Amino acid sequence: MTDAPTYTASTYTAPADTAQTDTAPTAVDSPFLTVLVRLLRAEDSHGAWERRSDADLLADYIVTREERRLIPLIGDPDPDTLWRVEKFYGAVGLRIEQLTGQVASPMMKMHHEGFGRVVLLAGRLVVLSRHLRDVHRYGHDSLARLEEAGETAAQEAAALIRRFPEVADA
Amino acid sequence: MTDAPTYTASTYTAPADTAQTDTAPTAVDSPFLTVLVRLLRAEDSHGAWERRSDADLLADYIVTREERRLIPLIGDPDPDTLWRVEKFYGAVGLRIEQLTGQVASPMMKMHHEGFGRVVLLAGRLVVLSRHLRDVHRYGHDSLARLEEAGETAAQEAAALIRRFPEVADA
Repeated sequence: MTDAPTYTASTYTAPADTAQTDTAPTAVDSPFLTVLVRLLRAEDSHGAWERRSDADLLADYIVTREERRLIPLIGDPDPDTLWRVEKFYGAVGLRIEQLTGQVASPMMKMHHEGFGRVVLLAGRLVVLSRHLRDVHRYGHDSLARLEEAGETAAQEAAALIRRFPEVADA
Repeated sequence: MTDAPTYTASTYTAPADTAQTDTAPTAVDSPFLTVLVRLLRAEDSHGAWERRSDADLLADYIVTREERRLIPLIGDPDPDTLWRVEKFYGAVGLRIEQLTGQVASPMMKMHHEGFGRVVLLAGRLVVLSRHLRDVHRYGHDSLARLEEAGETAAQEAAALIRRFPEVADA
């Protein structure tokens, strides 16, 4: 994760400066990012991303406050953005499994205009429930913030599973 | 509910014979059908169904085994059918609220080809979880069966809420 991104001759645009200037988390201290990268690569069935580094893949998740403000809320969100939101919560689910041994499966229902709800379900327990809006502007300020957001969500969900083990097993 | 259906000059097709030959449930002994009709009428914002009787509205839910077999599974299910599935689970949620005082909100995520998942969530508790498939052929054999299906689902969910009140309140 500490490698400099390698640029391939794709339509990919260079990651924002923030991705580099940020105190770059390493794989060791960023369990959530490790899971997220694994999930993203698992979807790469055609090998299109083989030459993109982990940092490069994650850079798509970094949208600074200024960049966010420039994204219009008119019309439907970019399908790639929706896909990233889905993968984010999918990775939270996988991280929950690492923490508790319990699978947490995501269910996301979005209106095409960019609002909706996402839940993570473990057995009979709703371990995470969020209403989303303005998904057009989805993104995190930095890699550190992305790690923090995913890891916090997973830890809170794991705490709920530990509190109601009988429900999560049901 | 015991009225004979009144036929209006709409594109509506006559209800299948089963709807009549069935031991017609009355409003008194069919709490689920009462809720379902109320929900269907609540969606009728233009008054298009004002002259359709309750039995007539519910007749859309009756699809006999023979009729079902004739519906092809190729292509996407009829949007009206999907809408009926949604209203069915919405009515189960309302019936759960009658039984327990706890709101159970539905979340349905369907692939356009007619399979998917529906859950009903009360607080942090998954009170109902079903995987759906071949939704093209959704329907119930008779009004009595429709009542039974909805009421059983609601009673099972209510039992779960009573078993885990702390989770449903969370």
